[in-house]
Amino acid sequence: MSLVVVGSVAFDAIETPFGKTDKIIGGAGTFIALAASYFNVNPQVISVIGDDFPQEYLDLLKKHKIDIEGIQIKKGEKSFFWSGKYHNDMNNRDTLITELNVLADFDPQVPDTYQGADYLMLGNLTPLVQKQVIDRLKVRPKLIVLDTMNFWMDSMLSELFTTISMVDVLVINEEEARQLSGEYSIVKAARKIMNMGPDFLIVKKGEHGALLFHKEEIFYAPALPLAEVFDPTGAGDTFAGGFIGYLAKTDDISFNNMKNAVIMGSAMASFTVEKFGTEKLQHLTEAEIFNRVQKFIDLVKFDYNPEL
Amino acid sequence: MSLVVVGSVAFDAIETPFGKTDKIIGGAGTFIALAASYFNVNPQVISVIGDDFPQEYLDLLKKHKIDIEGIQIKKGEKSFFWSGKYHNDMNNRDTLITELNVLADFDPQVPDTYQGADYLMLGNLTPLVQKQVIDRLKVRPKLIVLDTMNFWMDSMLSELFTTISMVDVLVINEEEARQLSGEYSIVKAARKIMNMGPDFLIVKKGEHGALLFHKEEIFYAPALPLAEVFDPTGAGDTFAGGFIGYLAKTDDISFNNMKNAVIMGSAMASFTVEKFGTEKLQHLTEAEIFNRVQKFIDLVKFDYNPEL
Repeated sequence: MSLVVVGSVAFDAIETPFGKTDKIIGGAGTFIALAASYFNVNPQVISVIGDDFPQEYLDLLKKHKIDIEGIQIKKGEKSFFWSGKYHNDMNNRDTLITELNVLADFDPQVPDTYQGADYLMLGNLTPLVQKQVIDRLKVRPKLIVLDTMNFWMDSMLSELFTTISMVDVLVINEEEARQLSGEYSIVKAARKIMNMGPDFLIVKKGEHGALLFHKEEIFYAPALPLAEVFDPTGAGDTFAGGFIGYLAKTDDISFNNMKNAVIMGSAMASFTVEKFGTEKLQHLTEAEIFNRVQKFIDLVKFDYNPEL
Repeated sequence: MSLVVVGSVAFDAIETPFGKTDKIIGGAGTFIALAASYFNVNPQVISVIGDDFPQEYLDLLKKHKIDIEGIQIKKGEKSFFWSGKYHNDMNNRDTLITELNVLADFDPQVPDTYQGADYLMLGNLTPLVQKQVIDRLKVRPKLIVLDTMNFWMDSMLSELFTTISMVDVLVINEEEARQLSGEYSIVKAARKIMNMGPDFLIVKKGEHGALLFHKEEIFYAPALPLAEVFDPTGAGDTFAGGFIGYLAKTDDISFNNMKNAVIMGSAMASFTVEKFGTEKLQHLTEAEIFNRVQKFIDLVKFDYNPEL
């Protein structure tokens, strides 16, 4: 099934206790599309870059059969740039630089070839741009997934509410679920948020896994305990990409299949954190992904016999 | 199989955002023994109380077929008393009062009828007392499980190391695993801690579940997402009681059966937090426990088909 991905395609510069990078390819749209590309869905990306964006990075996307027709290239302008530094526990980071550049006045364009998309993944961006893409698709996709963050809750809450009301699945982290709902209990938060529109809610808990909510049902996906987290940048976007990629491939949006998609997203994210940026995500094999998913299966498996 | 439980039998006074209690029955030994009693193992308790401890509380234990012969009653002395206050997020608490009383010079006695115990659960206490009980059992139990906390890591680390080296299973929380090992990564922490003696390590992560480590294997037990945590007091002790009770009942200490035991401990703990203190743990039915375990099974279950 066809999949449209909206999100930044950009530069990141990252510092962790293990080292630091120069400007490398980053951005939510990049991580989402790369992760989804492993599910043979040829993600169609909507984004904007400056003419400072290296051709080799665009070639990298094309090599993964990612459609870049919807990536506008702004002459004489610069690509979005984010730089951040992680601390020892890897759960906290300081943003050192945020240069919006071309993102400041991003007017998303939907190429004709993207029309009729079955699946739409709205990566983290201003809720106004996310809504514009929904509005500019002539036929509503079968499933719309929205990723967002606390920054938009602080700065554009009413616009965010509007966009949230239009989507099927919302993906946020635990603190964001609390902020958005005003409830400390994640179960209560989920009930409130599903009343805002989405039929499904995914609450990411980082090293503690993720929860998938639907009506009164809950699914708990573990995270793989890792000896080393090298660089968490893009893990959430990779999760979203694996999630939507698996759904688009299997074309089954039942709660049961969404469980598989959450596991797949978690498995893909577990690769991303092993190296800087998209490095790991550039060269995965089917066998590696299969084996990683098997680890998730084994991690939670137990055979309880109620007769005992 | 026979089970000996060592731990405080005491008074608690608890304040949460939902209300407060007077002095009620509490203590690690109480929660462990009550939880374990649901597995028909007639826990044999080693503890000490003052003569201020109400007969009705001892009757409560006896009603659950808990053997209290090993609970010394000190004439003219007072029972251990702890008072604490939880804040809104329920993950932080302030200790308001700690009166050691009879625990200050606790000299644990092992009744003859307790000798030959198959299973030994050492609830949180000074590591010296925990070691004394091991030393005073004439035959080493088949399985020794140790619960401890950061307080002993701060105050009696070398004594704690000695006791840890003597046990099979160590139960601690995430922060304690980090403190004990000096490693931030829980996977690395687990490796180091298992090198200190225990073949198995359980890392409790509260609302994020628990991890069971054994050699190179890991099992991730979820926690049940709850709309309301009424009072977390005793949840960790209840977990330990459900864990050891299930093992003593099934008499199978394989890694695979320990997974079931961790689920059982988690299920029992999920009851405790629903009311103040031991209130919920006093009146459970087999059906309630069975249904709760089923919820844990459903929570993590997914049917991934690698052919898709």
